[in-house]
Amino acid sequence: MTSTVRLGEQARVAALDEAVSLDELRLAARNHGMPLEALRDDLTPPGLHYLLVHYDIPFVDPASWRLTIGGHVYSPIELDLAALTARPRVETVVTLECAGNGRARLLPRPVSQPWLDEAVGTARWAGTPLAPLLRESGLLDGAVDVVFTGHDHGTERGVEQDYQRALPIEEALGSDVLLAYEMNGAPLPPQHGAPVRLVVPGWYGMTHVKWLRDITVLASRFTGYQNAVAYRLRADADDPGEPVTRILPRALMMPPGFPDFMTRRRIVDAGSLVLRGRAWSGRAPVVRVELSTDGGQSWTDAALGESLGRHAWRSWSARWDAIRGEYELCVRATDEVGAQPVDPLWNLQGMANNMVQRMAVTVR
Amino acid sequence: MTSTVRLGEQARVAALDEAVSLDELRLAARNHGMPLEALRDDLTPPGLHYLLVHYDIPFVDPASWRLTIGGHVYSPIELDLAALTARPRVETVVTLECAGNGRARLLPRPVSQPWLDEAVGTARWAGTPLAPLLRESGLLDGAVDVVFTGHDHGTERGVEQDYQRALPIEEALGSDVLLAYEMNGAPLPPQHGAPVRLVVPGWYGMTHVKWLRDITVLASRFTGYQNAVAYRLRADADDPGEPVTRILPRALMMPPGFPDFMTRRRIVDAGSLVLRGRAWSGRAPVVRVELSTDGGQSWTDAALGESLGRHAWRSWSARWDAIRGEYELCVRATDEVGAQPVDPLWNLQGMANNMVQRMAVTVR
Repeated sequence: MTSTVRLGEQARVAALDEAVSLDELRLAARNHGMPLEALRDDLTPPGLHYLLVHYDIPFVDPASWRLTIGGHVYSPIELDLAALTARPRVETVVTLECAGNGRARLLPRPVSQPWLDEAVGTARWAGTPLAPLLRESGLLDGAVDVVFTGHDHGTERGVEQDYQRALPIEEALGSDVLLAYEMNGAPLPPQHGAPVRLVVPGWYGMTHVKWLRDITVLASRFTGYQNAVAYRLRADADDPGEPVTRILPRALMMPPGFPDFMTRRRIVDAGSLVLRGRAWSGRAPVVRVELSTDGGQSWTDAALGESLGRHAWRSWSARWDAIRGEYELCVRATDEVGAQPVDPLWNLQGMANNMVQRMAVTVR
Repeated sequence: MTSTVRLGEQARVAALDEAVSLDELRLAARNHGMPLEALRDDLTPPGLHYLLVHYDIPFVDPASWRLTIGGHVYSPIELDLAALTARPRVETVVTLECAGNGRARLLPRPVSQPWLDEAVGTARWAGTPLAPLLRESGLLDGAVDVVFTGHDHGTERGVEQDYQRALPIEEALGSDVLLAYEMNGAPLPPQHGAPVRLVVPGWYGMTHVKWLRDITVLASRFTGYQNAVAYRLRADADDPGEPVTRILPRALMMPPGFPDFMTRRRIVDAGSLVLRGRAWSGRAPVVRVELSTDGGQSWTDAALGESLGRHAWRSWSARWDAIRGEYELCVRATDEVGAQPVDPLWNLQGMANNMVQRMAVTVR
């Protein structure tokens, strides 16, 4: 495993006193999170869903687009968009989150896209299930991984690549995995993978390969960059680490009151108000959301709203009798496996940091 | 004038060696620029147009939305959305740019939304002209400014406010000023000012007040924060400065080849290629675009494409015979008044920095 970890240069970690670099700022200006006031909506309005694009957004002509399915199969398949959309159609509401969400809250800070809390969004995806297509291709015995390749091309830490991610065959055959061609009732926008992307409900965003062009079944483990190097929980450069897979639990709060432009500190009028937000987990159903108004020292249960589906966020609400003063509001989700950590779990590449949200509030 | 400049705390400028702060990063994660590969399109695809929201995105119910027009007029007007959309409809293609575009390239860096080059976008706006409505309200003699108030509310440098910007009456009566309710053929999305925003073709973005709720005619100069303090070209804290008004000329290049994820450095195969991009100016028509492949030491003319309208960007192209090596590509626009500066013109709040774009390219 060590040899594949060395594929490319090592991840850089900022010095303890090192502030955000021009490289990180350039990524932050291109990519964007979901402004947290959009937690108001079940489905994130178009243009507000978080967006992370590794290289450039490729503009793929839907008329000439083809999807090939091959590798360790008996009958390779080639489909155009008309053939794909003529297949059985499924709709599903899915909360997507970037595996790097929370990275810029780590200390020291791994240097990459510098997300704080907001790399999330929920959409209604429509597409056709992947599993029947894989079965029609005649999977041969011994299939291990399925590699999904996009049209996006670039270099990362010295490794030139088309964006590629593999899923274990048993995950790729999951009944909820889609080849999606619509987002919220419209064709996919270019930045979300037009004309077709993979949707793997419950998994972090790197899995949902955009601008999909090829699916290749392997009889061995995939050792490409995005699986073997990038999206892993590594303690240091010598640690091959564990793969990043399903989304860990997280709750976020709609910011109450109104903000200060520069600091985003919230100003709230004293009185009784209802705090609201959303919670989700790709690992197991969310069973509890708790609110703290004292920076995480004490917690009270919030009420959970209706579920929108197993892989969609769930609303929560909690009444707060706000008295004049300075507060740090925190919220944390617990799923059937466990709770969000109050303090972050550091790793070399800043992956899957689901530490609790902290929001500075002045009650006047 | 000095007293109004003191409205609120002063703008902060980072120390010469001070990197990007958490406050700036928080803004960069919420707001977003246009990924430069979207320079490909005449109209920026939905979700890729730059976005700057001072406070929170207010979610305004179109059914209960009302616009009031009053102040120094004979017959105040109140309109609902049906009444507004029943009025004469005009469509116009407009390139919008944030007045803070280029701020994070200044040294020392004014601390605010840290834009690099990408705070721009072009849309087809549909709406009804403002001037006939102002005339129907019975403008009284001595009207000086027209104040536009949005539903967005927050504090900025200690000043609590609804977002408000004024235009001189002669500009507000301009034939191309619109109350816009559609963007690229669809109702305005929440983040772009739903249900109605002001569009003032040729002016920087701060003028195009979103979530518009009130128009008030004044018989005196407006002295509110956004006009008297924020959007001014000030040399220092004691300088009242000149107002930021129309967009200065700028050209941008679609990044050639493919990028490195972290540095965004471009990799291009040696050979003859065509570089493309867009150029615009709100001040006067663009008459020339020039390309430099040696960091701005020498320049050659690019070819200009068809105009999409007086206030829309214009495409340009230039052939480049790329030979192996390291390059810094630059592009600059010239309008009928003058050229973009190669070096930035510093001001206290980092406004209207239209210095030329610089792009690092490796030809292999």
